[in-house]
This record gives sequence, structure tokens and C-alpha cells, in this order.
Amino acid sequence: MTNEIRLNAFVGMSPVHLSPGLWAHPRNRALNYKDLTYWTDLAVLLERGKFDTLFIADSLGVYDVYGANAHAAIRAGAQLPKHDPLMLVSAMAHVTEHLGFAISASTSHEIPAVLARRFSSLDHLTAGRIGWNVVTGFSESGAKAVGRDGVIPHDARYDRAEEFLGITYKLWEQSWQAGSLIRDPASGIFADPTKVHRVQHEGPFFQLETIHLTEPSPQRTPFLLQAGASPRGRRFAAAHAEAVLVGGPTQAAVAARVRDIREQAVRLGRKANDIAIFALATAIVGRSRAEAQAKHADYLAYVDPEGAVALFSGWTGIDFSGFELDAKLPRDLRDNAVQSILQSFTSADPTREWTLREVIEHNAIGGEGPLLVGTAAEVADELQNWVVETGIDGFNLSYAVIPETFTDFVDLVIPELQRRGAYKADYRPGTLRAKFQGSDALKPSHPGAATRPVALTRH
Amino acid sequence: MTNEIRLNAFVGMSPVHLSPGLWAHPRNRALNYKDLTYWTDLAVLLERGKFDTLFIADSLGVYDVYGANAHAAIRAGAQLPKHDPLMLVSAMAHVTEHLGFAISASTSHEIPAVLARRFSSLDHLTAGRIGWNVVTGFSESGAKAVGRDGVIPHDARYDRAEEFLGITYKLWEQSWQAGSLIRDPASGIFADPTKVHRVQHEGPFFQLETIHLTEPSPQRTPFLLQAGASPRGRRFAAAHAEAVLVGGPTQAAVAARVRDIREQAVRLGRKANDIAIFALATAIVGRSRAEAQAKHADYLAYVDPEGAVALFSGWTGIDFSGFELDAKLPRDLRDNAVQSILQSFTSADPTREWTLREVIEHNAIGGEGPLLVGTAAEVADELQNWVVETGIDGFNLSYAVIPETFTDFVDLVIPELQRRGAYKADYRPGTLRAKFQGSDALKPSHPGAATRPVALTRH
Repeated sequence: MTNEIRLNAFVGMSPVHLSPGLWAHPRNRALNYKDLTYWTDLAVLLERGKFDTLFIADSLGVYDVYGANAHAAIRAGAQLPKHDPLMLVSAMAHVTEHLGFAISASTSHEIPAVLARRFSSLDHLTAGRIGWNVVTGFSESGAKAVGRDGVIPHDARYDRAEEFLGITYKLWEQSWQAGSLIRDPASGIFADPTKVHRVQHEGPFFQLETIHLTEPSPQRTPFLLQAGASPRGRRFAAAHAEAVLVGGPTQAAVAARVRDIREQAVRLGRKANDIAIFALATAIVGRSRAEAQAKHADYLAYVDPEGAVALFSGWTGIDFSGFELDAKLPRDLRDNAVQSILQSFTSADPTREWTLREVIEHNAIGGEGPLLVGTAAEVADELQNWVVETGIDGFNLSYAVIPETFTDFVDLVIPELQRRGAYKADYRPGTLRAKFQGSDALKPSHPGAATRPVALTRH
Repeated sequence: MTNEIRLNAFVGMSPVHLSPGLWAHPRNRALNYKDLTYWTDLAVLLERGKFDTLFIADSLGVYDVYGANAHAAIRAGAQLPKHDPLMLVSAMAHVTEHLGFAISASTSHEIPAVLARRFSSLDHLTAGRIGWNVVTGFSESGAKAVGRDGVIPHDARYDRAEEFLGITYKLWEQSWQAGSLIRDPASGIFADPTKVHRVQHEGPFFQLETIHLTEPSPQRTPFLLQAGASPRGRRFAAAHAEAVLVGGPTQAAVAARVRDIREQAVRLGRKANDIAIFALATAIVGRSRAEAQAKHADYLAYVDPEGAVALFSGWTGIDFSGFELDAKLPRDLRDNAVQSILQSFTSADPTREWTLREVIEHNAIGGEGPLLVGTAAEVADELQNWVVETGIDGFNLSYAVIPETFTDFVDLVIPELQRRGAYKADYRPGTLRAKFQGSDALKPSHPGAATRPVALTRH
């Protein structure tokens, strides 16, 4: 962790990501989420603000816990539609030079060799700026979309993810060994077949036999991100992730997660700061506090409570469709297994009782992270305070109105942070991993590093 | 079929597509196949030439029939590496306005809901300029890369493809019915859930249950292309394809295929010209015949015979690694089941005997289609003659040196064809399908058309 705050912009390829209803705000371009210029404009803006990455969440699931159907999500456009963000990357790479792209893809829904090839192709096209947010897919609807009877049980999903990563590491790091590319016009030899290896794998979840179909890319293994909040998810992140995304409404909650991830990483032979940790947050900034507060009040008028409850039901697994918005949430919700989940959306104070409306309003702009409303100096104070108090490296910035939330941040908060020496004056050169860690390659202590030889078959 | 010749540029995302060895030519940019500007430059060039599409072939297979390994293909860079062309589309869409993108994806290696979503996402991002070349995957290596023990038998692959398309038609055409999108800021309603349907399917090859994750795109179903040459493949193409790619060295061979496809389409209730048929061809053009011939001779000096035989072994399924280049090919090759395959690479004259070197030289620049060498007028004569004699709609133009082969064609042949009234003066407006058929939607006679109601589940 350095003095420098790192930033991702956190979005989805949907009319609504984490701020239901706000697509209807007159300054929101959210309905253009399906169009190319929405994304190329956003990428240019973020690069102007020297953001580390544009982080695009993705899954195949729909929010159908609320009312046991997807009606509310459809009415609200709440993460449905949800288009394929990998399709955006090359266009955004074309209009930028440094911005990284972190895209979710699921080890439960993808085929290892196909996904490995896709990320390698993007690593070439972006000159090393692609990151993979490894997700395992928690929804029944996503599982059924790919032909399963139901979702894979939680811990088995992570076992599968471990096996998936093991395969892709071999494809990325070892199928084409160093020196395999000759590309000599005089001899007409493109590559040395004695240095290109077929990867064979036979495991509980996957089997395959293939040469990796792409030549070695700038980073080989894409920069790896992870967001699992469960104990098993955090163990997985501590082993594999180079950046981790955490969410939580209070500094205490986030600090505990940060400590846990760093401690686990150290136990696995990595360094505590081998993992860059980002906390979800949203900032509404004005040139005065009054202006920021007025903006906040204006945004709140557009919140779609039903859409917000539909998202919240999906996150918690509780169908809130029968609940009164203004009644206190029943005690048994807080006393059973979902208490900790619910708490993560409200506060660390277990004595406070919440109505559903209060929970919704607490999360309906930008999701479960803190919502910072104020001048650039006030927001910068808060951000710096969060870094000091929690040990995070930076923020996953969510939005209320797009691109306004990011434009305000770039125009107002970034210069303030730069003045304080808490934000980079310019990008470092090189790949996404080089920008984070100083080197294109996985660190030797990483489980995917090529320095760990595996059995490979000569073809 | 009109007077107007249609054109696709036919390429792969590899250092070598169909002209092994020519990557070493000093004017060839082929080694940059992995980089973004190689593709955006090519797209801009092709749009300047008013090409209908850039057609990027793809598969997960490697050429490992020759010598029973991939050594020769690796040494030659012959379709290995082979990167993921879907990753290129959005960048090329960003720098063009009219050019279509036809990309191969396999019904044997993809998941229907995932692929359907990917193409819908691209249909939005390209404003309706995406086409899907439906392939079924013929190689053992491709099957093993995705975890199969071996390739699915030929006819079962097509049964699977039929089922795959049936699912994707439901997702594209019927999951979001007309009028489902409301997008009304006043009411805050994005879509009408009574008009959004969950697709359920349970078949021999696939099961799924999902709402299509993308909102209706300009074409809904991407423009559909197919290239199957077998009887079963041609039946499939006659049923589903809106454009078909054929290959063959002689007009007689191509004419027979064209006739067969059109007759089959008519038997299925479609019109003969509902399918645009493209023949593989390569043109080497000069400002004089001598210049073109000198260019051809120069290119030939770079042909990599081993790479060419490796590709040829893969196409025919015959391991030619033990054969003398200059010996006549043994008679038993021509008398057995591969005779027709071999003939398609040589000539329709069954009495001529060929050496392997002759076969290679006949196909080593641009593959099995005719190689036209001459002035713009001579090449235009040949192209027009092919159209008249075979009943094709246009050409799938392969290349020797990239972008030179296409630059020459755009600068020299296109103006000549335009002067003759045999090529469009400008693009028609609208989607790829509108450019071909005058309408964004599938024709009512197409098996995927939304006018054919299917059973849909309310969610």
C-alpha cells in the first residue's frame, strides 16, 4: 500500500447497475449502455481521470428472487438486460492508451481453453491492459441458462474455479515457452515446435488436451481480480487474486475483510501488499456542499424502490416482495443466517432496527459501499480517511448518473487528490500488471507463475 | 442475383490464413495479426472499397494431420496461433459505418444462450452489422480442446447445429416480443414484463431455461452464413443460411454446388435468391499484365511447401508427410473416398495426374479457389464471367499479402467494376441484412422468423 489511491470505475453493461431508477434522470445516458459510443466516451473520460481500470461486472443471472420471478427487474431494467462486456474491450482499447479493463467471467459457465484464448487475444489487442475478474456464478438463473439443473454448491464452485485456473495457468504460462517465437523471414520459421507444448488435463471438473491457440501475450496471464466475500471466496482470493474488491458500509467491516485477505495471502507465501484491495464507494460531488446535497436530493427522487428491493432480494436471497416498505424488518431476519448479509447492507450496529425503505435508501445509489456527498475537499478527506482506517489501496467507484458521476469526480476530486499527492500525476508505462506491480509477469510467489514447472506433453 | 457483384474479404486471425510462407514477404503485415491497428486499418480499407463484409474464419482446431503432430503448422504459423476474432469486432465497428462483420463460431463448442447473447451484444454495438458463420467444428483437436474425447460424428454435428439454432432463434426472435421495451422516464418503466419471455428447452443435445439477456437488437438474429460442403452441410445451409460460401477450382464444380443449394432452398419454401452465394477467389492485380505476373512470381517465391502440405493434409484428412513432392500422387488416393476432396483442390479433369508440388502450388496462394492474375480489366472480366457461368452472387476474396492484395483490389479492380455497373457506387443504408435483403428482420420464409410462434414459458 502506498500513499497513492487507486481507482476503478465500477459499472455493468445494463441500463441499471447499482442505482435503480436513475436511468430516468434527464442527464443520465444509461439507456445507451448498448451502444458503442457510450463506452468509448466513458473510456476516454476515465483515461483523462487516470483511472486504473474500467471494471465491468457481469454474470448470466437475473434478479428473480423478489416475487419469485423477474418482473420487477424487467420493469426496472435492473441488471436485465445485461449485455456481454467482453465485446466492448477492443473498441475502448482503440480510443485509450493506458486505461485497464477488468471484466468478469465465470469459471462455472465458461470452457477453460476458450476463455483462456479469449483473454489472451484481448491481452494482445489491448497491449497488456486486460484483467479478469474471476467469478463463480451464484445464481440459479445463470446455471439454468447454461443448461444445468441448478447452481453448483458454493464450495464445489470454488473447487471448480481452482481447477479452472490451474488449467488456464498452464495454457497461458507454459504452452508457449520463452523463446518459442522465431518469426524469422529468412528461414521462414514462425515458431519452434519443440518449444510449444500441448496441455493435457484430466480432473474432476474438466478434461482437455490442446496447444494454447494464442502466442504469448504481453501479460500472459491476465491481471487477476476477485471479489468473493465468503470465507472460501476470500481464501481463493488470497491465493490467486492480484486485486480484490470488497464491499461494506462501514470502515470496521471493510478493515476486517482487508486484514483477513492480507493475512491469508501471507500464510500462502505471498506478500500482504501483493494484493491491491478496492472498496466499493460512490461520490456525489459539488462545487459547494449545498450543491452536492442538492444533487443527492435530486438523484434520490429518481430511485425506483421496487427495482432496489429486487436487487436487494437477489443479493440477500430473501424474497422481500411481501414486506411493507415502512415497517421495521422482523427480528428473525436479523437473528438467522442472513443477519451478517443484511448487516453488510446496513451498519455494524446490531441494535439499530431498519425499515426496508431505510435499507433501500441506504443502498439504492451505488450499492452497499459508502455514499460520500460533499465538496471535492470533503470527498477527498473521506477517501483518504478510508484508506488510512481500512488498509485498502483504493476504490471501486460506483455511479448514480452516468457519465455525470464520473465526470464530476474527474473534474473535481482527481485534481484535489493530486494536489495532496494522493493520486498519480500520470500513468506508469506498460501493462496493467506493470502499472500495479512493476512487472508484466506474475510474481514468482503467485501460484500461476511459470517458474513452477508442471508436467506438459510434447505433441 | 443481380448484376452487382458482392464481396467479402476472407481472412483468419493468424499469421497465415490460406497462403503459407507469405508472412515473410517484406510487404506483408501478417505478423501484426494480433494487434488492433492491423484490423482497424484493414476495416477502413475494406469500407473504402465498399466490401460487404470482412469475413473472419475461426475454429479451435489445429492442423495436426500432417506427420500426426502440429510441428509443421507451428513452424509455418499456419492457422496456429489463431486468436479469437469476436474480440475484434467492436474496434472495427468504431472506425467504420457500413462494413459488415461475418465471424465463425461453432455449434459444437459454444453454449447457446452465451453465444446468442454475444451476437446480440455485437449486433447492438455494430448497429446491425454482425453476421454469424455457423460452423460445426470438424477437427479432433478442436473437440479435445473443449474436453471431448473426440469429434462428434458428422451428421450428429448437424443435428446438434439444428437444435442449437432452434434455441437461439427463440432467444433472438421471441424472448423479447415487439413492444416489450417501454423506456418511459415518466413512469420509470424500462420494459413490460408481460412481453418478456423465458425460453425453455429440453432436447437431445441441449437444455436451458433463460430470458434472453439482451434487449432486441437491430437485426435480432444475426445475418447467417454457412459454408458446409457435404450433402448434410448443404441441406443445413439451404434451410438456414442467408449467405453461403463455396470453394472450388473450376466453374463447373462451383456451378453444381450453387444449383444444388438454390434447389434445396426452394424445396424448403425459400426463394432461390434468398441465399447470397460467394465463391472463394484470389486476385493478383497489376497495372499491366506483366506487372501482375511479376507480382505473382514474387509471391510464389515465398510459398512454404511444408506449411502448404500441412494445411492440405488437414483439409483432406490425409497425412502427406511421407510423400515425395515431385512424384505423381498414387492412384489409390484418387480412387478412394477422398478422390472428390482431392479433385476439389485440383481440377475437374479426372484424367490428369498431379504431383503433390503441383497441388500445393495450385492452392498455396489463397486456397482452393481460382487465382486470377492480370490487369484490373482482365480480373474484372474473369469475375463477371464466373458470376455468369456459376450463378454466384459474388466472391470471398482471399489474399496473398496483406493488406496489399486488398489495397490493389480496392484501388484497381473496384473502380473498373463500378465503371461497368457491376459494383455498387455506394453502400445501401441500414443493417447487414437490410443491405442484402432490404429488411432488418429474417424473411417470413426463414425457419427462425418470429412469425412462427413457438411455445414460450411465462416467467
